[in-house]
Amino acid sequence: MSNIQSLLKQIAALNGDLYHKDFLLTWEKSVDELKKIVAVADALRWLRRENISTRCFDSGLAVSIFRDQSTRTRFSYFSAANLLGLGVQDLDEGRSQIAHGETVRETANMIGFFTEFIGIRDDIFLGAGHAYMQEVAAAVEDGFQAGVLEQRPYLVNLQSDIDHPTQSMADLMQLKSHFGSLENLRGKKIAMTWAYSPSYGKPLSVPQGVIGLMPRFGMEVVLAHPEGYQLIPDVVEKAGTSAKESGGSFQVVNSMDEAFAGADVVYPKSWAPYHVMEKRTELLRQNDTAGLKELEKDCLANNARFKDWECNEAKMKLTRGGDALYMHCLPADISGVSCAAGEVAASVFERYRIPTYIQAGFKPYVIAAVMLASRFEDPVKLLRAMKRRAFGRAGH
Amino acid sequence: MSNIQSLLKQIAALNGDLYHKDFLLTWEKSVDELKKIVAVADALRWLRRENISTRCFDSGLAVSIFRDQSTRTRFSYFSAANLLGLGVQDLDEGRSQIAHGETVRETANMIGFFTEFIGIRDDIFLGAGHAYMQEVAAAVEDGFQAGVLEQRPYLVNLQSDIDHPTQSMADLMQLKSHFGSLENLRGKKIAMTWAYSPSYGKPLSVPQGVIGLMPRFGMEVVLAHPEGYQLIPDVVEKAGTSAKESGGSFQVVNSMDEAFAGADVVYPKSWAPYHVMEKRTELLRQNDTAGLKELEKDCLANNARFKDWECNEAKMKLTRGGDALYMHCLPADISGVSCAAGEVAASVFERYRIPTYIQAGFKPYVIAAVMLASRFEDPVKLLRAMKRRAFGRAGH
Amino acid sequence: MSNIQSLLKQIAALNGDLYHKDFLLTWEKSVDELKKIVAVADALRWLRRENISTRCFDSGLAVSIFRDQSTRTRFSYFSAANLLGLGVQDLDEGRSQIAHGETVRETANMIGFFTEFIGIRDDIFLGAGHAYMQEVAAAVEDGFQAGVLEQRPYLVNLQSDIDHPTQSMADLMQLKSHFGSLENLRGKKIAMTWAYSPSYGKPLSVPQGVIGLMPRFGMEVVLAHPEGYQLIPDVVEKAGTSAKESGGSFQVVNSMDEAFAGADVVYPKSWAPYHVMEKRTELLRQNDTAGLKELEKDCLANNARFKDWECNEAKMKLTRGGDALYMHCLPADISGVSCAAGEVAASVFERYRIPTYIQAGFKPYVIAAVMLASRFEDPVKLLRAMKRRAFGRAGH
Repeated sequence: MSNIQSLLKQIAALNGDLYHKDFLLTWEKSVDELKKIVAVADALRWLRRENISTRCFDSGLAVSIFRDQSTRTRFSYFSAANLLGLGVQDLDEGRSQIAHGETVRETANMIGFFTEFIGIRDDIFLGAGHAYMQEVAAAVEDGFQAGVLEQRPYLVNLQSDIDHPTQSMADLMQLKSHFGSLENLRGKKIAMTWAYSPSYGKPLSVPQGVIGLMPRFGMEVVLAHPEGYQLIPDVVEKAGTSAKESGGSFQVVNSMDEAFAGADVVYPKSWAPYHVMEKRTELLRQNDTAGLKELEKDCLANNARFKDWECNEAKMKLTRGGDALYMHCLPADISGVSCAAGEVAASVFERYRIPTYIQAGFKPYVIAAVMLASRFEDPVKLLRAMKRRAFGRAGH
Repeated sequence: MSNIQSLLKQIAALNGDLYHKDFLLTWEKSVDELKKIVAVADALRWLRRENISTRCFDSGLAVSIFRDQSTRTRFSYFSAANLLGLGVQDLDEGRSQIAHGETVRETANMIGFFTEFIGIRDDIFLGAGHAYMQEVAAAVEDGFQAGVLEQRPYLVNLQSDIDHPTQSMADLMQLKSHFGSLENLRGKKIAMTWAYSPSYGKPLSVPQGVIGLMPRFGMEVVLAHPEGYQLIPDVVEKAGTSAKESGGSFQVVNSMDEAFAGADVVYPKSWAPYHVMEKRTELLRQNDTAGLKELEKDCLANNARFKDWECNEAKMKLTRGGDALYMHCLPADISGVSCAAGEVAASVFERYRIPTYIQAGFKPYVIAAVMLASRFEDPVKLLRAMKRRAFGRAGH
Repeated sequence: MSNIQSLLKQIAALNGDLYHKDFLLTWEKSVDELKKIVAVADALRWLRRENISTRCFDSGLAVSIFRDQSTRTRFSYFSAANLLGLGVQDLDEGRSQIAHGETVRETANMIGFFTEFIGIRDDIFLGAGHAYMQEVAAAVEDGFQAGVLEQRPYLVNLQSDIDHPTQSMADLMQLKSHFGSLENLRGKKIAMTWAYSPSYGKPLSVPQGVIGLMPRFGMEVVLAHPEGYQLIPDVVEKAGTSAKESGGSFQVVNSMDEAFAGADVVYPKSWAPYHVMEKRTELLRQNDTAGLKELEKDCLANNARFKDWECNEAKMKLTRGGDALYMHCLPADISGVSCAAGEVAASVFERYRIPTYIQAGFKPYVIAAVMLASRFEDPVKLLRAMKRRAFGRAGH
């Protein structure tokens, strides 16, 4: 981590406008904007390690809406909000009137009066999560313009059907930390590959987030999966375009070995095929329990054909120097630990266990940086004031 | 909204004692006290808009007890607490030992040690909600007198079987904003009318809150409902008495058209008849599921006789100039939107959608004002100190 | 409560190292360390009563994990965290991925990034609660050493299968308050006795906590229960050893009368026999519902043989002067109030109701003191700075 002066200089030198913007997809942001988020995150880390308070809100709420279970992202979001001084409030739809036909538009405004941020996880229905976030964003924009809301709450995507940007940005910070700088990522090969899991229906957002982000930093991204395990076509196409624009590369292969060969980084992780997620969404919407059971059975049977897609010692030997960085968003399906056969061999996971924990640890800082940059026009001025004030975070 | 100097002058000039008092029913407060709450709420709005922090607690809890689902009021309460610096904590009775026969008296003290406010929503059982709040208030008073509690937590009624005072006070602020001042409300006609809904069993507290409050500000209040849809007799009688004392007026009619005729304001909203709520309470207490189903069936059948009690364009034409202010506590049953036929026509609701959102936006300020005034003996001194300090709410 | 200067002097004079330590069992702490916690708690009380803010964290989380229902301890923990400026976040395992096979090690780190304290209640499975806390402690220590966590979260036992140290320390403060000083406890007789309850399966941690703590302050501790209602043998043995070392005494009798005879303090409370808890744990692990029903039936039948183990007026007459201090961790099973026949007669409980509430009121201060002392190396310096600063807790 660079020192604070150099970080502030970096931030000041970067173009791009994060002020008063939502954070839904990394590919809606310029590379400079993404670099700015990383640098602000690093500055917040520096200040926190020096026991300097980074509280910049004396009141205000960060609201969360989780339409799927979450531990890591929930705690990351709450931690980030707390770091900046915001209170957190969960909209538990089970307990609220939202379940009784209330419109999204209305609820978004009703929970928005003193709210600075709305963080949403909605990754179950293909075609729904991102659309829902856009709908909420439009509702609060409308409410702000009409004078209902005194300030516009900004949206933070905590995982949608399309992207998981706080995860992929944390991944990016892990890569930066591992290779020394974002510049050093250029030309490095990352294998984003499907891996076997005894469960089915895992979301597509993590692999999509990785292939959507890493080519933009000049990495050579190889997406690998068995035939039939496609991601959303638009996102895959976007990854290719990004690679061309940035001088990185992007290719899709149907062999884990091919992807691992000479890789600097491997990211083996299970997901459900795109067309299965589409079918599943349809069945869920129809409450077709029998159909869902049938689909699950078929999928698991199909998955079982690819049990050799496991990140084991033999596979790791194929990587550059045999010691590529192993990454995972956690929790991983560890063979012989969390399941009989899974995404990763126990010995590989154990060797990289601490690095995966460290990878996860960037997420609260990413979220805090996104919040800070979307709410304060001049992050450098704010961060400098924090440093100058040097008010103790603990024991002032 | 007036400027802060004139607001502080207004507050200073008003009599009435809100210090160290619970807030359960508006009719337990003098008109001056209610005006004081409105002025403190406006002062808090002014300060927040100027980005001045209104934090006045460095620690302390605002506890909430919701015995019925809530989104709006829950968020309003949490927002208000956060605005003043309090942490919020929900007593979820499903998860707590209160459900296992623990006395109210004991629990009230156990959750009260560091607690500044206890906000309660309890509106399902007729005869129970207000009584429960009084019981909790007596328990903490007792605990405070006996030295159990170092400070007395104050009660905030977040909706009882009798009144919904934070709603009706937000409604009052909306009326003040619409007509320019509280003084301008004198002589204005407000139609608080029943409206058709495809659901049954909606609480009586909103209409009761409106007829209990608005006559005291000199409004001409007309309560309209089909025969048989009476509110609690005592509350209706009180409304009549208040009207006489204040120079306003109050009458009950059985025609929506009559109520709407020449009205400056209309508040069409469904509720269950008083005697039905009594019967329902009895059946709920006996866990008589069959009886409840029967009652619901009868009620819905009876409701269906009054589908023409809908606030539609024809009805709106009857109001003064055809453009009375439409009010609703939300969520409204909107014909063709949230239900086939409901309280309000879609075109009417859409025209007044933003005003109803703005109406809801006063609630967090009302709650914060109630809190501030019940906890600080000299609100003017406190608000003046906040203004002078001018510590940034965001980005200090 | 002594004045602040004398409290600070006391703290400074005490040996013992609470800094950067977990708080799992009182018998892992020296007597000086326990005295230090009491004195810090008293200092926090003094400051709070003087309306002086004791906030010493500008951000940071206190996480709670409740594997059993709780009202009192939950609110005490949240209140303590709030008093020091920490945000609170509950890890609701029902809603989180922890239920899906995720390892404790991983979750502990994932929830620990910005976390200062992890408070855990886990008292259902004999042999599991304390072990789980140790596992979490090892995981965050490991994460801290490996650079995953920038600071090590400290564990606070909010009730395990073995000890309930925040309860027993609150009990100690109640005794100190009643007798004037900790020194005055020497030679006082306390009867920790089993009492009849119409429920079964109550945890052992409260009686174990009391017999593990009070002998160390020179009290004459008598543990009384019907034959067959043993506590964990190791803990009982420990109590005997402690008594010998401290000059107090400890004995076990099978007669409530004998225990009450001449007692200065009585603590009558139901619990399940050790061997029943063992069997119950086994059955719970096997999901043997029929076996559990059988066990409950047998136990209740056996309990019913000891309905005369009730703290009634006749029993109270046996105590010193007939007016021993009655203690209970609440909620008590009160005969004729919360059940037909229970632990305590209604007239006795009512006479001591307020003292039991006051007893409970020490718990948030104990927890806050434990937090403060484990996180700040020089509590005296910190407390003195708080006093000097004299920033108003309410209405600064």
